[in-house]
Amino acid sequence: MSANFKIGLVGAGRIGKVHAKTFSTLVPDACVAGIADIDLAAAKSLANQYDIPVATDDYRRLLDDKSIDAIAVCTPTDFHADMIIGAAEAKKHVFCEKPLAFELDQIDAALAAVEKNKVVFMMGFNRRHDVGHSRIRKDVVAGRIGNPELCLIISRDPAPPSAEYIRTSGGIFVDMMIHDFDLSRYLLNDEPVEIYATGSCMVDPEFAKYDDFDTAMVVIRFAKGAICHIDNSRRAVYGYDQRVEVMGSKGRLTTANLLEDNTTFAGPDGFHEPRALNFFMERYVPAFQTEGIMFVDCVKNGTPPACTGFDGRAAVAMAKAAALSAKTGRAVKMEEIG
Amino acid sequence: MSANFKIGLVGAGRIGKVHAKTFSTLVPDACVAGIADIDLAAAKSLANQYDIPVATDDYRRLLDDKSIDAIAVCTPTDFHADMIIGAAEAKKHVFCEKPLAFELDQIDAALAAVEKNKVVFMMGFNRRHDVGHSRIRKDVVAGRIGNPELCLIISRDPAPPSAEYIRTSGGIFVDMMIHDFDLSRYLLNDEPVEIYATGSCMVDPEFAKYDDFDTAMVVIRFAKGAICHIDNSRRAVYGYDQRVEVMGSKGRLTTANLLEDNTTFAGPDGFHEPRALNFFMERYVPAFQTEGIMFVDCVKNGTPPACTGFDGRAAVAMAKAAALSAKTGRAVKMEEIG
Amino acid sequence: MSANFKIGLVGAGRIGKVHAKTFSTLVPDACVAGIADIDLAAAKSLANQYDIPVATDDYRRLLDDKSIDAIAVCTPTDFHADMIIGAAEAKKHVFCEKPLAFELDQIDAALAAVEKNKVVFMMGFNRRHDVGHSRIRKDVVAGRIGNPELCLIISRDPAPPSAEYIRTSGGIFVDMMIHDFDLSRYLLNDEPVEIYATGSCMVDPEFAKYDDFDTAMVVIRFAKGAICHIDNSRRAVYGYDQRVEVMGSKGRLTTANLLEDNTTFAGPDGFHEPRALNFFMERYVPAFQTEGIMFVDCVKNGTPPACTGFDGRAAVAMAKAAALSAKTGRAVKMEEIG
Amino acid sequence: MSANFKIGLVGAGRIGKVHAKTFSTLVPDACVAGIADIDLAAAKSLANQYDIPVATDDYRRLLDDKSIDAIAVCTPTDFHADMIIGAAEAKKHVFCEKPLAFELDQIDAALAAVEKNKVVFMMGFNRRHDVGHSRIRKDVVAGRIGNPELCLIISRDPAPPSAEYIRTSGGIFVDMMIHDFDLSRYLLNDEPVEIYATGSCMVDPEFAKYDDFDTAMVVIRFAKGAICHIDNSRRAVYGYDQRVEVMGSKGRLTTANLLEDNTTFAGPDGFHEPRALNFFMERYVPAFQTEGIMFVDCVKNGTPPACTGFDGRAAVAMAKAAALSAKTGRAVKMEEIG
Repeated sequence: MSANFKIGLVGAGRIGKVHAKTFSTLVPDACVAGIADIDLAAAKSLANQYDIPVATDDYRRLLDDKSIDAIAVCTPTDFHADMIIGAAEAKKHVFCEKPLAFELDQIDAALAAVEKNKVVFMMGFNRRHDVGHSRIRKDVVAGRIGNPELCLIISRDPAPPSAEYIRTSGGIFVDMMIHDFDLSRYLLNDEPVEIYATGSCMVDPEFAKYDDFDTAMVVIRFAKGAICHIDNSRRAVYGYDQRVEVMGSKGRLTTANLLEDNTTFAGPDGFHEPRALNFFMERYVPAFQTEGIMFVDCVKNGTPPACTGFDGRAAVAMAKAAALSAKTGRAVKMEEIG
Repeated sequence: MSANFKIGLVGAGRIGKVHAKTFSTLVPDACVAGIADIDLAAAKSLANQYDIPVATDDYRRLLDDKSIDAIAVCTPTDFHADMIIGAAEAKKHVFCEKPLAFELDQIDAALAAVEKNKVVFMMGFNRRHDVGHSRIRKDVVAGRIGNPELCLIISRDPAPPSAEYIRTSGGIFVDMMIHDFDLSRYLLNDEPVEIYATGSCMVDPEFAKYDDFDTAMVVIRFAKGAICHIDNSRRAVYGYDQRVEVMGSKGRLTTANLLEDNTTFAGPDGFHEPRALNFFMERYVPAFQTEGIMFVDCVKNGTPPACTGFDGRAAVAMAKAAALSAKTGRAVKMEEIG
Repeated sequence: MSANFKIGLVGAGRIGKVHAKTFSTLVPDACVAGIADIDLAAAKSLANQYDIPVATDDYRRLLDDKSIDAIAVCTPTDFHADMIIGAAEAKKHVFCEKPLAFELDQIDAALAAVEKNKVVFMMGFNRRHDVGHSRIRKDVVAGRIGNPELCLIISRDPAPPSAEYIRTSGGIFVDMMIHDFDLSRYLLNDEPVEIYATGSCMVDPEFAKYDDFDTAMVVIRFAKGAICHIDNSRRAVYGYDQRVEVMGSKGRLTTANLLEDNTTFAGPDGFHEPRALNFFMERYVPAFQTEGIMFVDCVKNGTPPACTGFDGRAAVAMAKAAALSAKTGRAVKMEEIG
Repeated sequence: MSANFKIGLVGAGRIGKVHAKTFSTLVPDACVAGIADIDLAAAKSLANQYDIPVATDDYRRLLDDKSIDAIAVCTPTDFHADMIIGAAEAKKHVFCEKPLAFELDQIDAALAAVEKNKVVFMMGFNRRHDVGHSRIRKDVVAGRIGNPELCLIISRDPAPPSAEYIRTSGGIFVDMMIHDFDLSRYLLNDEPVEIYATGSCMVDPEFAKYDDFDTAMVVIRFAKGAICHIDNSRRAVYGYDQRVEVMGSKGRLTTANLLEDNTTFAGPDGFHEPRALNFFMERYVPAFQTEGIMFVDCVKNGTPPACTGFDGRAAVAMAKAAALSAKTGRAVKMEEIG
């Protein structure tokens, strides 16, 4: 806890736990100096686990703490915009989990506060920092596959979330596929122009209660002509399925799943390899670490964030276009969303 | 040429050559007894290569030949319906290459002639007979993956066809993706209800001249809820890319590409495996063989065809729905097509 | 049976069946014109299956048949040398299954008869014709991996042979590992100088009755410095395990096993691929075909055999060195064997 | 540096750096409290990098430091035995890098001191803690593959060490293959009875100067009948090659190499994956971490060491048997070594 770069973490839920661990143990010279959650017991528990000196149910205590350099926003999405504004006005740098916010006008207000107060803002799309995905981005930008033509992004969770999570998630496009929308722009280095989306409820009837899908498929046309497929499922019994593919005029790049270990058993029924790493907490540990290191670097050394407020806004706009498409059965142009 | 089962082959082009080789050398007890093509030189050349006794520019000569048991229709699509009717009326059994015909009313007329004359009719969707794809079908039907939820079908040719071929192909959906439409029904054991399609011209400007695409992506909703992605490209520099995937409530099944050989070279730059088998003439040799053997078995032993006229019609209807969707930018219901 | 190149096949056992099928159905312009086996019923059964006009229990009938171009020797090893001599004196070309013979002086006599009568002689080491192994040989000779340093050859049968087979096999080194001895010379393009061998009886106590092993491991030093490992087992429950690897100063080449199909099932326990192809009759079908085509080509066009009498003798000498090493517990120099 | 468990590290060379990083950053509750090296600059440099408060050229200063709980011996092998004795007499627990010592009587003296002073002793064979290798050990012990019959261990370094390192290494068997000797006992859960070894100089003529090999192959017979192959090379241009395989009556277990990332590029020449992780400092980071955590656990909680002094001695005895075999050209029984 004696590190130079002090984070105030807001939100002690699933993703808050990931960042508490990351900033406490995996980012050199960083530490978590305080944790806030309206569920004080959750905040205290996490504080205890990672030796965090302050646990509070009022995040404003972290904004008031002069020693804190940056706020990591890990609360439910409803609160993101207000917290970003509060942090920016307290001159704290901001790391914000996805999605930036549910509404574009909230996002615009939050980003305006960031700009006005000249603080660093970085969006938490962790998959950009995966060693495989980022290698593909670099290769695409360097022209290794020529002109990108087709892109496939597959993201399937191992098991559906709790009913409570489903109720407030905002729906599969803004809650889950938001990662893939961001990844599509990142991998293709291009902007979307039109989105078609459809979905089903096949995994858990809980999703249907909220007009949500648990299985969804999307087609996106990009400005330079590439077409991108995304599919999401809330359940893949073989583990967290994370694959991307970009094909262009000169070749194809793919990332494969990472498995629990590198063993194979060959028996009378054939060859057996273990499950895919179970979920993002296992699969993307190094990506969260790289993300944390980069955020610290942005603040300390002024390097530009690898994932900006503009990126955060663009993904939310894509999610809105997808939701509208799924409702109307037609492709929706991005310019309709604004 | 002394085999019991005698085929009359109509069409000495690319696919005619495949079936000439298959029925001449890979199907026990079968032979090609005559070959017809309006390009007589092409017919003669193939006849010479496979020791076929009759080469003609008038396919009616084959219909009149009493020794011939069955006609294999391998001409351009325009002629399919008339030839099926002619063959059926001459009491010849019929094997027909894809697509069955361009128009549904032509198809209905052809299938009526088949029924009236009580001849065997089998559609030539060769991929159904691939050892991997057919294993997946069997596993899906047997419930190995539970309820199917997502399906991916990827089919990319190594290089675009000739300008002449493009001019008369009928467009990517009915010429190329027709295979994948059939495969989607086969793998999911279900019927499509709605199709969305889009495409680009990124490979060869020749396609744009005919309002065609060289790159296309489709989303299909099936009756029992599964959603299916198909993508096609007219060029994949690494070889013929043929992959399918079906995920359900209990697991996922995939087929991988077959490579030129099973060697790996490990050098200073990493690990290198050879290209995918170049095209369908290499990739699907065993599938064409199985298809030929099955056709002979249908005629000789009365086993029901693995791929029927109904299947041939359904794939054409899907291609029509896709073409309409790509034109209108909306999902098209199968009931709109008829 | 009207093909130009007529084979007389001697031996209707396991390997005789393979060559009956190969020369009858997979080698253009070749056919089996007669089959001999002391078990006349076995000869007749195979003749019936492949439409072979002559079945006899006296192989001399085949030698006397003027229409026969070549004899394929597929009998138990004891008879090889005499049959080669008989065939050569009858001016028949000879294809001989492994091992050439049990004793070096028998081999020398047989090869002398071949030379004196100026007939073509080709050894049947089928693995040389495998597309993967032969690609490695070509790459090694072309210098792709620089100077070869290490070689691994793994060959494990799916299940042990019958007690009767074990009794007369000659032991694991001359019966089974003979293939790998040949492969080591072929892949490294070099000659062995010293061999160490050891073995165990762990699979079937039948082997111990004849002082034989069912599990064996060998180390071979080659003239240019490379060191080669071979292991054999009479039982691998996951199928026929056939892998080779050559590492040199500039890289490493490997061949992988071929599986029953190219599907993967992903379920709650992980990823599952089917068994390896069960045995040589499945795994090496294309290699036997290439071998047959090459033999016909040698006779018809005078191309030099890809596998000579010298190669056949060298492998037997290595087997003798291995057997002596296993008995004495020391490395045996090839020059001790002669 | 405020952690509870304090390590005194002796040796600031290649392996000392690995443990400095491990105990400083990857083992919870542990820290390096002092570092000694006769090259004081090297000690200071490492102390600086990991915030280690004491850097000295006299390791006895660490033995005298009451706050230090344990000594990690990372010096050249010559010094191991004396340092273990010194540490034990100072009542420090001992973690010792491989090989334990060059001579068996030194080892016996060192282990006697450990026992007399009732300190914990753990051997540093890091590969035992690899997630793949340890999974195989667990599966073998649990009977998943039945009775073990064959074992292959492949270990090839990416590039040869410095001439200085070669001069004092003790030779390939005791310096490099010692890891594989230990792994063979660990994986097979059995004791060796006989070893055959041979080697070449093909990579770097420096090795020949000291009668050493840069390429070596070994066959080991185990008490229960299994036979084990080990090969080592000082150069593999594709990266650190680390594979193990154990086959038994019911199946086969293997570990695959880990590559730099999980991407594949498919281009006109085929499919390309990146290099294997370069060397042990990259490949075995998690294994070193697990090893460090286990050592702390042994001291704090009295859990028995996963790798004992007996294990360290057994591997040295195997190295001696291999060296004798390579010199004499015969298999050497373990009982000859003592």
